[in-house]
Amino acid sequence: MSNYKSLKEEVYEANMQLPELGLVLFTFGNASAVDRSKGVFAIKPSGVHYTDLKPEDIVICDYDAKIVEGSMRPSSDTKTHAVLYSEWDKIGGVVHTHSTYGTAWAQALKDVPIFGTTHADHLLSDIPCAPPMTDEYIRGNYEHMTGHQIIDCLKERGLKYEEIGMVLVGNHAPFTWGDTVSKAVYNSAVCEEVAKMAFLTLQINPNAALLKEALKKKHFNRKHGKDAYYGQGC
Amino acid sequence: MSNYKSLKEEVYEANMQLPELGLVLFTFGNASAVDRSKGVFAIKPSGVHYTDLKPEDIVICDYDAKIVEGSMRPSSDTKTHAVLYSEWDKIGGVVHTHSTYGTAWAQALKDVPIFGTTHADHLLSDIPCAPPMTDEYIRGNYEHMTGHQIIDCLKERGLKYEEIGMVLVGNHAPFTWGDTVSKAVYNSAVCEEVAKMAFLTLQINPNAALLKEALKKKHFNRKHGKDAYYGQGC
Amino acid sequence: MSNYKSLKEEVYEANMQLPELGLVLFTFGNASAVDRSKGVFAIKPSGVHYTDLKPEDIVICDYDAKIVEGSMRPSSDTKTHAVLYSEWDKIGGVVHTHSTYGTAWAQALKDVPIFGTTHADHLLSDIPCAPPMTDEYIRGNYEHMTGHQIIDCLKERGLKYEEIGMVLVGNHAPFTWGDTVSKAVYNSAVCEEVAKMAFLTLQINPNAALLKEALKKKHFNRKHGKDAYYGQGC
Amino acid sequence: MSNYKSLKEEVYEANMQLPELGLVLFTFGNASAVDRSKGVFAIKPSGVHYTDLKPEDIVICDYDAKIVEGSMRPSSDTKTHAVLYSEWDKIGGVVHTHSTYGTAWAQALKDVPIFGTTHADHLLSDIPCAPPMTDEYIRGNYEHMTGHQIIDCLKERGLKYEEIGMVLVGNHAPFTWGDTVSKAVYNSAVCEEVAKMAFLTLQINPNAALLKEALKKKHFNRKHGKDAYYGQGC
Repeated sequence: MSNYKSLKEEVYEANMQLPELGLVLFTFGNASAVDRSKGVFAIKPSGVHYTDLKPEDIVICDYDAKIVEGSMRPSSDTKTHAVLYSEWDKIGGVVHTHSTYGTAWAQALKDVPIFGTTHADHLLSDIPCAPPMTDEYIRGNYEHMTGHQIIDCLKERGLKYEEIGMVLVGNHAPFTWGDTVSKAVYNSAVCEEVAKMAFLTLQINPNAALLKEALKKKHFNRKHGKDAYYGQGC
Repeated sequence: MSNYKSLKEEVYEANMQLPELGLVLFTFGNASAVDRSKGVFAIKPSGVHYTDLKPEDIVICDYDAKIVEGSMRPSSDTKTHAVLYSEWDKIGGVVHTHSTYGTAWAQALKDVPIFGTTHADHLLSDIPCAPPMTDEYIRGNYEHMTGHQIIDCLKERGLKYEEIGMVLVGNHAPFTWGDTVSKAVYNSAVCEEVAKMAFLTLQINPNAALLKEALKKKHFNRKHGKDAYYGQGC
Repeated sequence: MSNYKSLKEEVYEANMQLPELGLVLFTFGNASAVDRSKGVFAIKPSGVHYTDLKPEDIVICDYDAKIVEGSMRPSSDTKTHAVLYSEWDKIGGVVHTHSTYGTAWAQALKDVPIFGTTHADHLLSDIPCAPPMTDEYIRGNYEHMTGHQIIDCLKERGLKYEEIGMVLVGNHAPFTWGDTVSKAVYNSAVCEEVAKMAFLTLQINPNAALLKEALKKKHFNRKHGKDAYYGQGC
Repeated sequence: MSNYKSLKEEVYEANMQLPELGLVLFTFGNASAVDRSKGVFAIKPSGVHYTDLKPEDIVICDYDAKIVEGSMRPSSDTKTHAVLYSEWDKIGGVVHTHSTYGTAWAQALKDVPIFGTTHADHLLSDIPCAPPMTDEYIRGNYEHMTGHQIIDCLKERGLKYEEIGMVLVGNHAPFTWGDTVSKAVYNSAVCEEVAKMAFLTLQINPNAALLKEALKKKHFNRKHGKDAYYGQGC
């Protein structure tokens, strides 16, 4: 029997939530979770439809994206997940979708501006859109470099991955993460909803102003940090 | 056994309608109902997912937002509900959502213009968008002041809460109310649909004119007041 | 037992299709069917939610909108239906909805332009938007005059009700009809879909040209008239 | 018993997926599959609602669109399917829908621009919009000429049908194809999603640039050709 049974089940459940939440069509998405004590992560196999997916199909990989256990080929985006787990030691899960509004903003090469408290409840900055990588990198180790594209984008903006949880890869689509894969799935749905609201906001008022600092901080700190009073505590 | 069992069940049912009507994602909303004879209201606990919510989780508070019964922390918006119950003695229920189109108008800091009879069937004015409060208030008793922000907005516009049933809190999202919590839920769905229709109307015709006075009054009075002839009477 | 049992059931079923097709929220719609041999039509009672509606609640009225059978108050739009049955002797059913895109065009006071074959499969002209009636008529026998507003709009445009099946009442919403109530329901869904497609067409190309004559006629005549070859014939 | 039982069942299943995927309203679509060894294809009967459709209703036709087996009239678009099977010997299935966003682009007479990797995962060019045919052809053998309209459009653009899988027929709607009917259904859903994303992209950024060559090729070649590494191989 597999040593990774519960990890596979967790990742299976997370993947199955993506079509339920309306975030993926067919196979356009994947979720993974890491087991730090074992130095591996579990990820969806490539190109398998959600209707056919079974917990035992989930593939176990190490941080170099090498297969540790599993008879199927892992997601074609596995190297991107591997880089994120390798570089960011506080994340527990990663999700990639081509959700409609998030992808449209990524295709437009625009950050999603922070217009309201729905956004500020989750992150304090615009959702950054990482610029496309150079042709050389694209032709090289593309999925590995996608991980670095995400990491570099945050660095250049001075953003902390622990606080932001989501990014748009330019011309591609959103990647999200969290301390668990369940939180990463949650962030994917938040990213899509916030992207839709920002789209509509600009359609209604092309001169809409960004949320002011006081409201940003109030809402973010209601839910995050030592003075948070949202939810049932821990 | 609780003295508030039926009140909790009513509020539980009202909360469960919010995701069913497509008005909330995850925990982005809350509904409450008041028992005037007992001087308390019942409200959703903070941060609990609708899939996990049970009638016994509902929290009972007084008009100062102090917990009267319940082992969970009430919604982070409880003080806003408390102020509305305290100031407006004819309301029986309050609902807050981050519904997509209503929130987009709130983020755009624009009133939803009255363009048609769907709107006038429910209220005679634009849906007002309350301007964001001062930084001082935001940093102070924020949720309490949100209640006053709503009340002040109506006062400044000369609008009666008994007739209007809904408001957008600028940069935040809609709040609605009614003589029962069920009516407040209904008003949340009406607010979202009217906000969507107004958005589309302006996309089709940026110079669309507001509904004329005669049509406003005809439709509002079909459903409200002593000469109403819509529905089955009482 | 009622003489109108099967008529009531037909109208009940037609009404229940409206929320299923996503065309009505709450009680914002009504469907009716006529029995020409008996000189009556059956219609939804006013303000009753679809979840509560039962076949025996359906109200029977004559062409003057007087109740013939039924303990409930009929739809507040009953007089509009009555005028259409009275003036147009070839229709068997009428439907009124506040479907989102159809209503947005009505609020914009714009005809829905004929841009493609989906539209021409059903009607050869733009979907006309009847201008709002005078204040005098609004304050008078409003719902009766709404019927004439629809009829007059078609007359002024030289359109035949037998061919067109749908109209937008300016600032209000769509009315549709057909030789059966089932066809009227079908036309309501077609009206909404065509209205949505036309909205998107103009967003993509504000200078989109109307469908040319040859394509209009080809598609309309595939489905209608003596040379129709769509469907299974009769 | 029919010699075409399994072919009919395959086509029945493919047709039933169209409303499930939200690609057709009522009867606005049809799917077919070919049996090259028998020189026939199976197609949906004309005007039959999906709720009424049964596997045995599927009609068998030859490449001249003559009925080989079946008691019902085949889809009014049968001649278009026949031309495609006759001219393109590597396709196994064809699907036609009036899906909302694809149809809007067709009505706008605009190609769907390639803005992102979701698009490039499936085809390397814009989704071409074939210009409307001449009035003479429309009045002549219309559905037959629609097949040639599609084929000519690809020829003029220098596109290979084996690689592109989808086209918009100007003022009409999408046609898609694939080596199986299941792949053709898949392409219909991809066409609709990509059309929606491109619409939103241009709303967000009217000056959005097309996807660069390196990203196009990287994503297309991940999924197609001898060096593909997406999916589980064959």
